[in-house]
Amino acid sequence: MSPTSLSSSAAVTSSWLSKPIKGLLLDITGVLYESGTSVAIPGSVEAISKLRHAGLPFRLVTNETQKITPKIIEKLNNFGYDFQKHEIITPGMICCKYLHDNGLRPHFLITPNLEPEFDGLDRSDPNCVVIGDADRYFTFESMNTCFRLLMSLKERELNRKKNLLISLGRNKYYRERNELKMDLGGFTVALEYACDLEALIIGKPSAEYFQTAIQTFIDPSSSSSLLCKDNIIMIGDDIIGDVQGAQNFGIRGILVRTGKYMPINENHPIVRPDGIVDNLAAAVDQVLQHNQNN
Amino acid sequence: MSPTSLSSSAAVTSSWLSKPIKGLLLDITGVLYESGTSVAIPGSVEAISKLRHAGLPFRLVTNETQKITPKIIEKLNNFGYDFQKHEIITPGMICCKYLHDNGLRPHFLITPNLEPEFDGLDRSDPNCVVIGDADRYFTFESMNTCFRLLMSLKERELNRKKNLLISLGRNKYYRERNELKMDLGGFTVALEYACDLEALIIGKPSAEYFQTAIQTFIDPSSSSSLLCKDNIIMIGDDIIGDVQGAQNFGIRGILVRTGKYMPINENHPIVRPDGIVDNLAAAVDQVLQHNQNN
Repeated sequence: MSPTSLSSSAAVTSSWLSKPIKGLLLDITGVLYESGTSVAIPGSVEAISKLRHAGLPFRLVTNETQKITPKIIEKLNNFGYDFQKHEIITPGMICCKYLHDNGLRPHFLITPNLEPEFDGLDRSDPNCVVIGDADRYFTFESMNTCFRLLMSLKERELNRKKNLLISLGRNKYYRERNELKMDLGGFTVALEYACDLEALIIGKPSAEYFQTAIQTFIDPSSSSSLLCKDNIIMIGDDIIGDVQGAQNFGIRGILVRTGKYMPINENHPIVRPDGIVDNLAAAVDQVLQHNQNN
Repeated sequence: MSPTSLSSSAAVTSSWLSKPIKGLLLDITGVLYESGTSVAIPGSVEAISKLRHAGLPFRLVTNETQKITPKIIEKLNNFGYDFQKHEIITPGMICCKYLHDNGLRPHFLITPNLEPEFDGLDRSDPNCVVIGDADRYFTFESMNTCFRLLMSLKERELNRKKNLLISLGRNKYYRERNELKMDLGGFTVALEYACDLEALIIGKPSAEYFQTAIQTFIDPSSSSSLLCKDNIIMIGDDIIGDVQGAQNFGIRGILVRTGKYMPINENHPIVRPDGIVDNLAAAVDQVLQHNQNN
């Protein structure tokens, strides 16, 4: 057992519980349900209820870029959850705000399912490319169209390089119906390489993503405005995207032994989770017990 | 004018002519004809004739992976050339030999036009992926099939990483009918990134490519066996793929002011061609004059 892992007896003395916890960021797939199944991970529905009863705010954070937010919530609530729209943060939502705030007119390479997330944005005469997990909409034609637009934008706007190419994530692959599937990361680096550009990454594990997620906690009319990096934890099954991403941003990263977790993750050569727990239920129990004792 | 460029008066004193020249590697597009046209670059047909009459051997080197060799020759000879099969070196030919010599059974992601180049290879139970410029055959499905095969090969053959993914080139893009088009480089890095693998690059500017090209010169029954890196030059319009590639391999790289040449190339931040000439005709005239004087 790794020194950072937790047995129930050692739980309250563990280092990740040594600082206050006033908010939680929760990954979805592998924490709330197992990919490819249509049931919640045992104990996770109850864990969410306990957080609500304790008044401990949380946000669901995900790199899902194939579904719009209402569809994600609908799917989760069919598993027994009771999530509301403001409790979930997607790269699409963050990207939409970013495009709007920066006066950007996007050309999209995304799945049509995600299009409604960007309703209302000006798409005429595009001045940037936004790429999501387009799945079968990744074709030579669609990639080449992005490539040509980026090359012409590079020529036209010599001083702007930062946000010509915006990607909703950099994930390498995911598992669907027990088979691995290429994610948008490869297609993002393809365009970066061909165009000699660096993409702006909006999804986990980018700092922008975590920053926005934390900002959504802050409600000036309530005590939640006391939330900051120091008292928020991230719980996820991805040692890189969830745990390392959170730690790089300066918040504690807790690994669950569900989802894509593999025992080898407990001795990862680079990433050392702040805590390792069996599942969301165990994490929440320990957090609540800790808060009660302090 | 850059210090390495040549005026006709300075030609014979130029540094790239200070060592013997007994063989030439010639890029095709941009040296023999301009992309998107159906005529030879003025003087290039005659330059090839002069090389033949002088008994100076040459090889055409190209990263063309959309056509089989006979088709490339047919196209060039329609422009007025008289090339023969043994005078051209393609990544497909080199790859075919490499697969055969290494007992590799390929899964191909290439354009069907190129398939005959690989006739006779065992393709059952593939143990590597070969990627060429597949153009519209780059789809999510075809990329994902390669990705899954590579991931399962990685798992099955833990000690073999070197030649799981073989790419016929790493070019970023090319120009076709006056429009830029994504080349296979981006799709190669997409698979490298998603699979955490490094591709073996067969085309220019890889050392394997130049090595094979030089080896084809060597005919034990003739004096051409005296050919070596020191007395061969490469002439091309691509400052990276042709000039830097040749120089990295240890042979002189000469840039022509035709094809994709741009004046900015004469002050490239990294690559300093051994010589810069107006076109192939000028290069050949200078080489022949030099050989005559020595």
